[in-house]
Amino acid sequence: MNEDDLVRSLRERFSPRIGDDAAVVGPQVFTTDMLVEDVDFTAATPLDLVARKSLAVNLSDIAAMGARPRYALLAIAIPRSMTDRLPSMIDAWAAAAREHSIEIIGGDLSRGDKLVISVTMIGEVCARPLLRSGARPGDRVYLSRPIGAAAAGLQLLQSGISGNGYAERELVESLIRRHLDPEPEVALGMKLAAIDEVTACIDLSDGLSTDLNRLCEASAVGARIEKGRIPLFPDLEAHVRSLKIDLRQCVLHGGEDFALLFTSSLTESEMSRRAGRPLFAIGRITTSREVLLADGEQESPFPPAGWDHFRSGAEG
Amino acid sequence: MNEDDLVRSLRERFSPRIGDDAAVVGPQVFTTDMLVEDVDFTAATPLDLVARKSLAVNLSDIAAMGARPRYALLAIAIPRSMTDRLPSMIDAWAAAAREHSIEIIGGDLSRGDKLVISVTMIGEVCARPLLRSGARPGDRVYLSRPIGAAAAGLQLLQSGISGNGYAERELVESLIRRHLDPEPEVALGMKLAAIDEVTACIDLSDGLSTDLNRLCEASAVGARIEKGRIPLFPDLEAHVRSLKIDLRQCVLHGGEDFALLFTSSLTESEMSRRAGRPLFAIGRITTSREVLLADGEQESPFPPAGWDHFRSGAEG
Repeated sequence: MNEDDLVRSLRERFSPRIGDDAAVVGPQVFTTDMLVEDVDFTAATPLDLVARKSLAVNLSDIAAMGARPRYALLAIAIPRSMTDRLPSMIDAWAAAAREHSIEIIGGDLSRGDKLVISVTMIGEVCARPLLRSGARPGDRVYLSRPIGAAAAGLQLLQSGISGNGYAERELVESLIRRHLDPEPEVALGMKLAAIDEVTACIDLSDGLSTDLNRLCEASAVGARIEKGRIPLFPDLEAHVRSLKIDLRQCVLHGGEDFALLFTSSLTESEMSRRAGRPLFAIGRITTSREVLLADGEQESPFPPAGWDHFRSGAEG
Repeated sequence: MNEDDLVRSLRERFSPRIGDDAAVVGPQVFTTDMLVEDVDFTAATPLDLVARKSLAVNLSDIAAMGARPRYALLAIAIPRSMTDRLPSMIDAWAAAAREHSIEIIGGDLSRGDKLVISVTMIGEVCARPLLRSGARPGDRVYLSRPIGAAAAGLQLLQSGISGNGYAERELVESLIRRHLDPEPEVALGMKLAAIDEVTACIDLSDGLSTDLNRLCEASAVGARIEKGRIPLFPDLEAHVRSLKIDLRQCVLHGGEDFALLFTSSLTESEMSRRAGRPLFAIGRITTSREVLLADGEQESPFPPAGWDHFRSGAEG
């Protein structure tokens, strides 16, 4: 059983509202995401960044719904040894809450052997909720920004490679920052919800292949992605060899980019103009249920191969 | 720093809505509570009961606000070894959700070394939100039902004492059940909210001494509790010696009874009549800020000495 099987069974048992990035209830959306020590971060990760990220991952879910984030609740299990670092985590939550104009309205604190942070976030539907299920054949598939950086940053953290020379070290730092301190696309999400021609949306939390397949399954469509059109993080490609980064893995399957992946009937130039910033058309939605990756003339299946929270224990 | 100090600092840093059993936002209340393996339950606890209890503790917070529970979100970290027990937990959540007419609208699943269940619950304000802060000098202090059973059940689980003879074994079973499968006072909470003379309310999650002091502090009042008036679980007193139960500890400081502790200007008979069930006046709210326990002629301070989630690591 993988994460998607489980979500499907929860949807059947609990509520048809389960299955999007957040649950829509009237004018509100609700989402919850948990970060677990040694699964989502290590003891070496700065705790203020873990605190920030615990909000960011939820903000990204709200963004994918095109909603405005309003309130958050924090439930935390914390080991005794980390208690003295709690004030700096509280500072980080307070700063991030101010930055995104959200109010932290409740919490629960418990002891635990490992640090666990569970955040529930409540958003306000703006124009309409953006769902995963609206993509139509012929729509273009869009990415909101270059991807692969967060996964590359994680690889660098794990390998300990820090780069040679000023430019490369700068690149390494900014890749690692993308992993540790991701930027949710909150403003863009709300803008997309106001554009009628945007048909479906999901945030890239578990990798392009996995999240694209989720969007296609929810919409009962297929997609054909042109590999050459996927935007890459600036300068990443040039340093792939010396930094020993598995670029293909990072871009196609790497998690936690928190870019938005969405579909729209608009052309790339029109879409970018309406959103007021460059957006990247990387392929098309198709009638066949197949999800394909085209590399020049070659076309191959593009099944989900990204992060699976629920299977990760077996792989890790 | 104990749990209450921490809550006070979160209230200052994050939101004045923090500090009641749930946060009031317009017509809604929000609460979150986390259960952690080896802190709130052990590997020996049946997981379907852990699942039920994860909802019950949140339902009790909603009850204390006099609100109607509506929606819940579950975030779960689960060890690989427990995965095969997830279906029975899902059954338990689904059954408890039906029982209380709530809808589980979202969730998150992650791996973890220990089972952690974080529930966020959303309720709907009925007549008005019941707060901790409304108690007035002269009000009677009420308990919704006999207390001490859950803590006695926990002591029995820990001691392994199962009792002698049919009646005692039955008692042991029902005490343990009170600990493992607590009953939140949802219907009563809504009824109390509709009675104008009810001035303040809190649920007994951390013990009478601790939760009474919280209510008094929030209301800027004191209280004088008559020990002899505290209702005890039927037959508990008679078996205290043979079952080696520390009755004083269980009743005065034992956690997780999930009875409601509330204040009202009504007499016991009028209060019980209006609520449609027996309720127990155990003392009075006073103008002095002291919280006192009276045992016949003797009066002594009654400081918080119940469960402190945040200090429990030091004691456990």
